[in-house]
Amino acid sequence: MKAINVGLLGIGTVGGGTFSVLSRNGEEIARRAGRPIRISVVADRNPARAQELTAGACRVTDDAFAVVRDPEVDIVVELIGGCDVARELVLQAIDNGKHVVTANKALLAKHGNEIFAAAREKGVMVAFEAAVAGGIPIIKALREGLTANRIEWIAGIINGTTNFILSEMRDKGLSFATVLAEAQRLGYAEADPTFDVEGVDAAHKLSIMSAIAFGNAMNFDKAHIEGISRLDAADIRYAEQLGYRIKLLGITKRTAEGVELRVHPTLIPSKRLIANVEGAMNAVLVKGDAVGATLYYGKGAGAEPTASAVIADLVDVTRMHTADPEHRVPHLAFQPDAMVDLAILPISAVVSSYYLRLRVEDRPGVLADVTRILADNGISIVAMIQREPGEGEEQTDIIMLTHKTREREVDTAIAGIESLAAVRGRIIRLRLEELL
Amino acid sequence: MKAINVGLLGIGTVGGGTFSVLSRNGEEIARRAGRPIRISVVADRNPARAQELTAGACRVTDDAFAVVRDPEVDIVVELIGGCDVARELVLQAIDNGKHVVTANKALLAKHGNEIFAAAREKGVMVAFEAAVAGGIPIIKALREGLTANRIEWIAGIINGTTNFILSEMRDKGLSFATVLAEAQRLGYAEADPTFDVEGVDAAHKLSIMSAIAFGNAMNFDKAHIEGISRLDAADIRYAEQLGYRIKLLGITKRTAEGVELRVHPTLIPSKRLIANVEGAMNAVLVKGDAVGATLYYGKGAGAEPTASAVIADLVDVTRMHTADPEHRVPHLAFQPDAMVDLAILPISAVVSSYYLRLRVEDRPGVLADVTRILADNGISIVAMIQREPGEGEEQTDIIMLTHKTREREVDTAIAGIESLAAVRGRIIRLRLEELL
Repeated sequence: MKAINVGLLGIGTVGGGTFSVLSRNGEEIARRAGRPIRISVVADRNPARAQELTAGACRVTDDAFAVVRDPEVDIVVELIGGCDVARELVLQAIDNGKHVVTANKALLAKHGNEIFAAAREKGVMVAFEAAVAGGIPIIKALREGLTANRIEWIAGIINGTTNFILSEMRDKGLSFATVLAEAQRLGYAEADPTFDVEGVDAAHKLSIMSAIAFGNAMNFDKAHIEGISRLDAADIRYAEQLGYRIKLLGITKRTAEGVELRVHPTLIPSKRLIANVEGAMNAVLVKGDAVGATLYYGKGAGAEPTASAVIADLVDVTRMHTADPEHRVPHLAFQPDAMVDLAILPISAVVSSYYLRLRVEDRPGVLADVTRILADNGISIVAMIQREPGEGEEQTDIIMLTHKTREREVDTAIAGIESLAAVRGRIIRLRLEELL
Repeated sequence: MKAINVGLLGIGTVGGGTFSVLSRNGEEIARRAGRPIRISVVADRNPARAQELTAGACRVTDDAFAVVRDPEVDIVVELIGGCDVARELVLQAIDNGKHVVTANKALLAKHGNEIFAAAREKGVMVAFEAAVAGGIPIIKALREGLTANRIEWIAGIINGTTNFILSEMRDKGLSFATVLAEAQRLGYAEADPTFDVEGVDAAHKLSIMSAIAFGNAMNFDKAHIEGISRLDAADIRYAEQLGYRIKLLGITKRTAEGVELRVHPTLIPSKRLIANVEGAMNAVLVKGDAVGATLYYGKGAGAEPTASAVIADLVDVTRMHTADPEHRVPHLAFQPDAMVDLAILPISAVVSSYYLRLRVEDRPGVLADVTRILADNGISIVAMIQREPGEGEEQTDIIMLTHKTREREVDTAIAGIESLAAVRGRIIRLRLEELL
């Protein structure tokens, strides 16, 4: 049967992985897809390197815009990253009637609404399994595997760099800065790690999952984002003593008031499977009303794991490219005319449990004052540890876990407690989720 | 848009769950599927109960054969279980041009080759997500999510009853018989638990996964099956001391010589995520050459989790039922003309690591004799514990873990060791997998 022709934009890490997996497993992939999938042209800004990698197997160009117009190309695979040129290329590909496969979460989180509208208009598919959690088929699970369910919430470890750093901090008792330097040396963190460690990358991926879970538009700009750069190793230790681990979670939840969309370090019970996801691995926990909790685990990044997702999309598109658009899975899981417009809640309206760490003077009455303020704000305490002060020390740490509370109540209580004379410095506040 | 009409055969646990999830989430499901999915007729041998459950929402009959002929029915959902009548019903439904959704793993494991051939002939779909691991979308992951990969192996906890029993045996140090009785009391085990505890149910599911992973025919009759009923609590304890947990795994692996297809209690390192899957939960670990290891976790049984899978299939079939068959995902993941006929290896040809427990007299030279026999058979030892004999005891236990060995070598060595005068009774032999 006639091969399907792919135009590959960018042959860096993921592009190179896609090229080599397609070369190695091409025959087995064709046995599944029903026809060969071949890369007929590669565009890269370094055509010499592209020539070397592809070794004459396909055409090479430095003009990506020529590829998205190329009449021979059936599917454009966008792996150049970034938002400006990538957006232009994807929109032009769509405009030329090409199907698109992309791993670009930033692009979709920011311009997905525009891109999917254009694709719908033109009757082409835009597939993006590789944009979230690398090789884990989580987009497929959410869009197709769990269609029976009202999705209640999703909580995911969806950034490998930060999970690696948190695992090392806990394992070795090291500080964030020390582990970050090690991660950079090992290639687990970028030279400029901001996107990863400040939670932006996770928020891109979370925005995509939230949209397809609830049939909502992409709302990245309304996400609440906190990273791990200010996380203190002491809190990892205290959490452990209380039976919790700290993970950078992307959480999205449907509530009666709106949708929660938030990325932050989170205490989760140590005995949960997802608490035991270590190193650079990813995992996504999805709670559906019928199925209960399901978990999806695997490598969230890297050349071949991500290529695995890109190629799965190529097979899907290959199967469906001549089918009537109505037979296809809708881009955002719900039919375009059945999307909703749910409000994204500000973080002050989120309901969570909390971990609070206070540095206090070791004298009578402090705890009474603190607990009075909490009670006045309707916050009740589940567990508490007070560290015994060391020899000659005049201050100590109090750690408290609260029941579920609306965040604005916690904000008010914290302001009140910080104004007490016996409380020193700022209160450390982390969110805690039971994930049940 | 016109509703798709479902004929439901059997409104027991899973049928009831399917009915109630479709009722509860029907509007949201239609927003995904693009049209309503409605149960228009239910067949059950207890029509009074069916009437009561469906409360006038659809027709009720006690004649399932009328449903598979019913011109109004687009999709038949077979949830009556068993092999004889179910086979007849499914084949007649296909013959009448109906699509079929089934949760019947025994039926597919035994008659899948015949059923899929008939479906192909008639151009209809037979969907079976609910047949393996309940609500976990593992069939979709294998058939569609991992299409880029050469699947190397699958290892799954795919029977909740046995995983519950093993979890309890380890947790509470109880015997198999004691925990089985408790499981029966709690409804986690059937009155006749043979199918579950002897591994037959897991082997049904494993056969299905093996077929779609490797593009091979269904080979249930060639599977090697061992259950947990003879498992001793002592071995769970010893395994734990050595850093392993014992799980009933279904394992299928592609090797140069053929396909391994086996269900048996297996030692796995305690730190693996799958080793921490407790209670009645299921999990499937899939190793692909590109993606590496991915894991899928969730409820493997129960009314609504299984209904979640049944309905996901209904949505898929609803989307594709008017599409050209070539656009559909092939039943067994590979195109019918691209299936292979890989031999299933006998257990003697399987390569695994082993756990051996010997009861020996506490006198000099025994260990030398035992290790000599192992060495003569090319088996090397990774770890060993010898229990210190209690006061006045003249016998003790030796536990050994071996490197990877072909099973027939282990058989020969065990026969040799058992013939030693100082060795008492039979040697306990369990397989061990690192799952890397």
